[in-house]
Amino acid sequence: MVNLELMDWQTYAEKTKEGHAIIMLPIGAIEQHGPHMSMNPDVLIPKAISEGVARNSDSILVAPPISYGYKSQVKSGGGNFFPGTTCINGKTMIDTVKDVIVAYAKHGNRKFVLVNGHFENSMFLVEGIELGLEHLRHEGIDAQVMLLSYWDYVTQETIEKVFPDGFTGWDVEHGGVLETSLMLYLHPDCVNMDKVVHHEPATFPPYDIFPADQSWVPCTGTLSSAKNATREYGELLFNVCVDGIYQSITERFS
Amino acid sequence: MVNLELMDWQTYAEKTKEGHAIIMLPIGAIEQHGPHMSMNPDVLIPKAISEGVARNSDSILVAPPISYGYKSQVKSGGGNFFPGTTCINGKTMIDTVKDVIVAYAKHGNRKFVLVNGHFENSMFLVEGIELGLEHLRHEGIDAQVMLLSYWDYVTQETIEKVFPDGFTGWDVEHGGVLETSLMLYLHPDCVNMDKVVHHEPATFPPYDIFPADQSWVPCTGTLSSAKNATREYGELLFNVCVDGIYQSITERFS
Amino acid sequence: MVNLELMDWQTYAEKTKEGHAIIMLPIGAIEQHGPHMSMNPDVLIPKAISEGVARNSDSILVAPPISYGYKSQVKSGGGNFFPGTTCINGKTMIDTVKDVIVAYAKHGNRKFVLVNGHFENSMFLVEGIELGLEHLRHEGIDAQVMLLSYWDYVTQETIEKVFPDGFTGWDVEHGGVLETSLMLYLHPDCVNMDKVVHHEPATFPPYDIFPADQSWVPCTGTLSSAKNATREYGELLFNVCVDGIYQSITERFS
Amino acid sequence: MVNLELMDWQTYAEKTKEGHAIIMLPIGAIEQHGPHMSMNPDVLIPKAISEGVARNSDSILVAPPISYGYKSQVKSGGGNFFPGTTCINGKTMIDTVKDVIVAYAKHGNRKFVLVNGHFENSMFLVEGIELGLEHLRHEGIDAQVMLLSYWDYVTQETIEKVFPDGFTGWDVEHGGVLETSLMLYLHPDCVNMDKVVHHEPATFPPYDIFPADQSWVPCTGTLSSAKNATREYGELLFNVCVDGIYQSITERFS
Amino acid sequence: MVNLELMDWQTYAEKTKEGHAIIMLPIGAIEQHGPHMSMNPDVLIPKAISEGVARNSDSILVAPPISYGYKSQVKSGGGNFFPGTTCINGKTMIDTVKDVIVAYAKHGNRKFVLVNGHFENSMFLVEGIELGLEHLRHEGIDAQVMLLSYWDYVTQETIEKVFPDGFTGWDVEHGGVLETSLMLYLHPDCVNMDKVVHHEPATFPPYDIFPADQSWVPCTGTLSSAKNATREYGELLFNVCVDGIYQSITERFS
Amino acid sequence: MVNLELMDWQTYAEKTKEGHAIIMLPIGAIEQHGPHMSMNPDVLIPKAISEGVARNSDSILVAPPISYGYKSQVKSGGGNFFPGTTCINGKTMIDTVKDVIVAYAKHGNRKFVLVNGHFENSMFLVEGIELGLEHLRHEGIDAQVMLLSYWDYVTQETIEKVFPDGFTGWDVEHGGVLETSLMLYLHPDCVNMDKVVHHEPATFPPYDIFPADQSWVPCTGTLSSAKNATREYGELLFNVCVDGIYQSITERFS
Repeated sequence: MVNLELMDWQTYAEKTKEGHAIIMLPIGAIEQHGPHMSMNPDVLIPKAISEGVARNSDSILVAPPISYGYKSQVKSGGGNFFPGTTCINGKTMIDTVKDVIVAYAKHGNRKFVLVNGHFENSMFLVEGIELGLEHLRHEGIDAQVMLLSYWDYVTQETIEKVFPDGFTGWDVEHGGVLETSLMLYLHPDCVNMDKVVHHEPATFPPYDIFPADQSWVPCTGTLSSAKNATREYGELLFNVCVDGIYQSITERFS
Repeated sequence: MVNLELMDWQTYAEKTKEGHAIIMLPIGAIEQHGPHMSMNPDVLIPKAISEGVARNSDSILVAPPISYGYKSQVKSGGGNFFPGTTCINGKTMIDTVKDVIVAYAKHGNRKFVLVNGHFENSMFLVEGIELGLEHLRHEGIDAQVMLLSYWDYVTQETIEKVFPDGFTGWDVEHGGVLETSLMLYLHPDCVNMDKVVHHEPATFPPYDIFPADQSWVPCTGTLSSAKNATREYGELLFNVCVDGIYQSITERFS
Repeated sequence: MVNLELMDWQTYAEKTKEGHAIIMLPIGAIEQHGPHMSMNPDVLIPKAISEGVARNSDSILVAPPISYGYKSQVKSGGGNFFPGTTCINGKTMIDTVKDVIVAYAKHGNRKFVLVNGHFENSMFLVEGIELGLEHLRHEGIDAQVMLLSYWDYVTQETIEKVFPDGFTGWDVEHGGVLETSLMLYLHPDCVNMDKVVHHEPATFPPYDIFPADQSWVPCTGTLSSAKNATREYGELLFNVCVDGIYQSITERFS
Repeated sequence: MVNLELMDWQTYAEKTKEGHAIIMLPIGAIEQHGPHMSMNPDVLIPKAISEGVARNSDSILVAPPISYGYKSQVKSGGGNFFPGTTCINGKTMIDTVKDVIVAYAKHGNRKFVLVNGHFENSMFLVEGIELGLEHLRHEGIDAQVMLLSYWDYVTQETIEKVFPDGFTGWDVEHGGVLETSLMLYLHPDCVNMDKVVHHEPATFPPYDIFPADQSWVPCTGTLSSAKNATREYGELLFNVCVDGIYQSITERFS
Repeated sequence: MVNLELMDWQTYAEKTKEGHAIIMLPIGAIEQHGPHMSMNPDVLIPKAISEGVARNSDSILVAPPISYGYKSQVKSGGGNFFPGTTCINGKTMIDTVKDVIVAYAKHGNRKFVLVNGHFENSMFLVEGIELGLEHLRHEGIDAQVMLLSYWDYVTQETIEKVFPDGFTGWDVEHGGVLETSLMLYLHPDCVNMDKVVHHEPATFPPYDIFPADQSWVPCTGTLSSAKNATREYGELLFNVCVDGIYQSITERFS
Repeated sequence: MVNLELMDWQTYAEKTKEGHAIIMLPIGAIEQHGPHMSMNPDVLIPKAISEGVARNSDSILVAPPISYGYKSQVKSGGGNFFPGTTCINGKTMIDTVKDVIVAYAKHGNRKFVLVNGHFENSMFLVEGIELGLEHLRHEGIDAQVMLLSYWDYVTQETIEKVFPDGFTGWDVEHGGVLETSLMLYLHPDCVNMDKVVHHEPATFPPYDIFPADQSWVPCTGTLSSAKNATREYGELLFNVCVDGIYQSITERFS
């Protein structure tokens, strides 16, 4: 059992005593991912990867995810105007991350790994971490936080396998082969490949415009096609992320 | 399927069009519930009850829960000092509720039911709702929010069945017969009745003290004994809540 | 003289030196209390009770009350839509309580008693206290705060005397026998018994609705009838609260 | 009766209907005012002046004062380090003023007069008013707020009478002849002229220094001597302020 | 070279090591200053004065100014409704000042001089400083901040020279002789004396009104006439400020 | 003249009337850029580029830059621990951007271009824009904001010229050939090529760690070598950015 919320508190207290445990916190978003997929891959994927990592070591625990993320942007998530894309303000995101880190640190934990599944969250996670560590410092507590987005662990070798026709960048991998393959592997019931709409990867001008220009985004909500997604790619991607993240944690926190 | 995050966005858009859908939002906490139970009943119970309600009507959808709640208080949750009790600040709670309501309303939804599973959340939910509706009003949107704590739907008749030796109040039902029975019915894998520690219901002076006086709380973290909890009571409690809430929704939102 | 603001600063400094004084802070609201009563009982009652307590000991001082409280709720105060009900946001309440506690602690005070007179304030007072103590801790200061609502000191015996026909709960005691009797005893000029409108205690569904449904509330603004209120009951209630609170303070802070 | 909190809500509703009433809101501070005076003149004086003004017209009502003000500054209030000086943060002040204005406007009031009694409050009142009016505008409400500090209504002619030996400026009138005379007239029980310590008016360098340099301030806490204060001067000052403010209100709001 | 942003970081690190350097931070506003002048004198003047002071000592450095200031008020800046007057909220001002002080203190600096060029900023600077020092204290850092508005260094003797026909107060010196003369000396390209509109100094009632009453302000935006401004006066004013401020710094920080 | 703060307000009012003007707002940071360069390229470069763009059209104006930016991150700016790197909190950044946009919109402007010069600012600018537009919407104002980082306008063709030995990505271009060349062209006095320290481009693990691991960063503070920077490259880069941005503005805002 790796999910801390499934433990009773005494088991949790035993596992986390003396600050030796590592708390992994998945952070995602509720956001449309095309007509062929559920709206929670940004939560489910980092949660599954965290659980995969945690199964490697008795001292790694997975915390309940933060499910609501920062506002979807046109160039990386299709935009915040799609029905179902349900996002919170930047300051709320910052405060939530800060508070949750502080709360786990009050239990004696000192090592954290934030596993991000939603591109737009990144800088608000940075600020939440900064403010959390600052607060803890004022309480006389020193902690360390590792922050990562799981796709940064996909190796060049894997990219070449999964995108044999060329890779157009993580930014347009919204609802595309990466996420769809992972979901096919992890939660096949959340994917319906029959509803995939094939289209060329979205391209954008070098600027952003607010309010969003909805004509920039394919009407599917995906930024590249999921047509080539497979369960096998998903397994490959999952394993390369789990292995890489576990290795980073081992190097940094042992 | 009642959980909106499991739908693709087009299905969700179809179900919510013209503002006729009702969005149920479970709100809980990660909080110790004694040595015999996992730390997430405040999330799982309102989520399950919401799903139970939603199965009655095609127009009711359940949103992903807000998992991290307001700080546990000694007299209702044992206190915020227990390992595993992982709570956020009041302002963060207010902002999260506000932002999430606003986000769902931006999709065209106008009817909300917040199902609270954690006593201490209540007033922060009120303020989050107030600020959310105020914000929406400034956007030219009128919405309605129903707020409830599921235990307020347990009838006197059910109380008499479940607590045949007398009922000492919802406040000390922390980790007691109510929550344990519901978890035995809904998530039996999260309960280990062998680890229940029997004790008299906690009693408290008429004031609160800060920082918390840990000697006020049974060392188990429960405020009353779960010894008499059963799966059958859980089913009874679940059904009375589901039925009552569905009836309230029907009366108010039809 | 028990009211600290009536002292010159040197007298105050003498009384509070070495942190031995206890600061009582009444917190209320400006809120309608029916056609027969002024709009400030939530301020005047806790202020008078605090003064009553303070007259027992030279080391107890009463601070100027915080007069504006959190938004009146339908089920406990009639609702925030009545003319004259004048309430502030939750975050403002939290910050005010935090700042005032910190300010008194900067004078060297370490023991506080917050005496609440307005039901809806409670959880915001909790959070204000939590943030105040956290701030003080960062300043290297440890303080203790007792929080109470005066009605929680009314004993079962007194309830039976004051409500001989049965007691329907503190929640509907808004503008009813409790508050009216206390005001008749403490500030008879603020009550006009001729204008009392008799009605059955208000009853409510198990949920709240926002925006408020004004039809739930008696048009008087009271939630139960003040018809049976008397000055004698007021004296009895006053004394039982003063005695009980003084005893709590003695036990906790001696 | 001019104090709105002393009215029952129906009387208040009658007086304020159609937005014709003018709400005066006194705003002060709890702050040391020398060894010869209580710590609340900044509250009591603007409150009394507001009441004096309101007695001129049935359509002017006085709201309960905001008692806790912004941090005392060395050059105008002696500094925030004196025991008894009990001040709140600027943002809390801003939010309180904003919320209270908004709350009174929700009752239908459209004309406000903020009567300041504490020099350091001024700019935070400005910002509270600005944010309050902005919020009301978003609610579709236009209101008008007059802001004044009562001493700005003391005429040159009165200054010459009250300070026959020369006037050194309002800034050093902290605990001096102005405030002491007014308190002798309004609340003689709060003044003990035997404890006045005579000293030359404080003089300061052209800069401020933080943390405060306590050696800049007379150890009495007063910035000029109250020796020449009299009840007669107090009456004179009171009347000139009341008359002037009433005239301003008449000109602006009729 | 006195401007720290023009140094490379190693030079800056060398100059600021051991906390011996003094950081001067000019703070202004973008605000109309009449038809004859650019909109940035409140930034350029305190920047130039800071540079003048810093040229006296190798240990004084000038930081990049904070350019956007608090909302212009009618009686001191003409009001916030003029095109080009571009002001930020009070809380934003407070936070900016706090953050910038904290950031420079993190480099090891302990002595700060804030040079204000915009009347309306003052109290928000005070609060920013207070919060900054509080934050630093929680980090275990003690720092000192001097706050000044440059015009407070203009001596009586200089006033008599520059305003031979009588001085009507700094408040109405908005776009008048003081600022125009200084700009003629420091940035003559930003002044066009041909466009000066002569008028009597503005006079105001003793209160403020919100929303602003635009009829109170000369349509030029200036509050007194710049007709008599000269480059020579500017030089005189500049020198008296630079000398006075340098002397204050020397006295306080040596 | 393109800098709006250099205009008198009447000129500005004339140029911006009817909302036809386009306001460009450069946003940077004060941040170390290696031993060979001043600490303000992130301000000076976007300011110069904005001015270059504005010289193409009478209807484009450049606003005073926001000089203090979000906290430098190890992988893109070397980290927030370098002396001289002077950064503000995320919420302060958000509020500043929001307030400044709102202020310019109050003058009647409806078209904005934010030109970012500091990588770490991006998402806080997004949120500031979102909140600014939301606020304006509540005021009944619709505006449009273009957001860009100037380096996104460097074409592939230019990259090939400027980085003939291969391009390692914008992220490590901190204090490298891009910024140094631009500064050599725009502000050669701020660069000392003799102090350039040559090193291989920094490489980083796929995660971030907090508090920062200073050993990850070259001790120069640069992330890649500026050795090959030239004034000619700077001119080329400047022109390609100016041309591209002007074209975007023309397409979007004509």
